[in-house]
Amino acid sequence: MASVEETVRGLKYDDNGLIPAIIQDRASKQVLMMAYMNVDSLLATIKTGKTNFWSRSRKKYWVKGESSGHTQDVHSIRIDCDLDTVLIEVTQHGAACHKGYFHCFYRRLDEAGQWQVTEQRVFDPEKVYKK
Amino acid sequence: MASVEETVRGLKYDDNGLIPAIIQDRASKQVLMMAYMNVDSLLATIKTGKTNFWSRSRKKYWVKGESSGHTQDVHSIRIDCDLDTVLIEVTQHGAACHKGYFHCFYRRLDEAGQWQVTEQRVFDPEKVYKK
Repeated sequence: MASVEETVRGLKYDDNGLIPAIIQDRASKQVLMMAYMNVDSLLATIKTGKTNFWSRSRKKYWVKGESSGHTQDVHSIRIDCDLDTVLIEVTQHGAACHKGYFHCFYRRLDEAGQWQVTEQRVFDPEKVYKK
Repeated sequence: MASVEETVRGLKYDDNGLIPAIIQDRASKQVLMMAYMNVDSLLATIKTGKTNFWSRSRKKYWVKGESSGHTQDVHSIRIDCDLDTVLIEVTQHGAACHKGYFHCFYRRLDEAGQWQVTEQRVFDPEKVYKK
């Protein structure tokens, strides 16, 4: 039987060693965000029960909520048919989006072809990230 | 005011001109699949009300359901805070996964670190794709 590390290494990563991870809220089923993981951050996610990612812009590991306190408790980890996308169900503490919304998809395309904000902020990013 | 084409061109695409699109079932809120769009397939999705993608492996456009009949009616299109991921809510006809499952995330990581199939097939891929 494969070890968890072999299972994780058996997934399909892109040329940068990354796999997209869709994060879904367990209670509301809202898709909260998408971010990228590598082997080490996925293993850390499994081991700690908190979501860990790789930041493509900052080129470093990050634990969701490390600055804001808005961590995500992992409930389940699923893989798709092609082994190249992860779906993680979580309990979200606080809010997922660094812009202050509960989730990152707070803008909807309207009939005129414009993005409309449909959600209300649940925290003030300036206060949370200045702490 | 920007045209819908300007709105679509204003998103952030990767080096191959692609943006990931998460597809979620409106009724069950199940995340069905993730696939990639470029400017033209996202515009076609908006115009036709059916999901259109770009296949990275086959290097061609595809309409979801073009072989199987399992099309997706678009209900809403959302964009994330970073303008680099699309979330589309759909009504799924038939099933989303080409392996015969309603959705692509039919395997869950168990406590031993193995992928376990947790769903049942809703169609036989050999019959559907041989038609």
